[in-house]
Amino acid sequence: MTKLTEAQISDKLANLEGWELNDNALETTFEFQNFKEAFTLMTRIAFECEAQNHHPDWSNVYNKLNIRLNTHDAGGVTEKDFKLAETIEALVSTNPE
Amino acid sequence: MTKLTEAQISDKLANLEGWELNDNALETTFEFQNFKEAFTLMTRIAFECEAQNHHPDWSNVYNKLNIRLNTHDAGGVTEKDFKLAETIEALVSTNPE
Repeated sequence: MTKLTEAQISDKLANLEGWELNDNALETTFEFQNFKEAFTLMTRIAFECEAQNHHPDWSNVYNKLNIRLNTHDAGGVTEKDFKLAETIEALVSTNPE
Repeated sequence: MTKLTEAQISDKLANLEGWELNDNALETTFEFQNFKEAFTLMTRIAFECEAQNHHPDWSNVYNKLNIRLNTHDAGGVTEKDFKLAETIEALVSTNPE
């Protein structure tokens, strides 16, 4: 898995609203109604991470969820990170209000 | 819920191995076999947080889980934080290996 260049990352981020390159990782923050909603989404994400064998650096405080994705072995952002980011977006977009 | 004094916190921390007062919060880090084990414990903790209506500031990277507890409304550590910390310890101690 090869580290993407900044130009490649910029191109791909154009199709991924709400995410940005921050400190060598793809990063976003979601805000939910409450803790239960935030953790419900985390659980759905967790299963997909396990299936993709790729895991986030994430933190949660009550209704807020911050997610950072990078590929440690490659020393940067790779296709694996974009794949997981797209999966997360798909889960969020189908999350019940 | 009243903020505890540093002396009160020190006394109580003596009975709570692995936790420390750090930047105005009770803090600890757990390390598990892998992501699945870490997230399993997070899920068990999440239900208890919801039941206690008290929520952590926590972050996870693969098999590591960092937890910080304080009571925002009181501006520091209260009995609620110790109660949740003790609950978390009880869950960890009964976690299957």
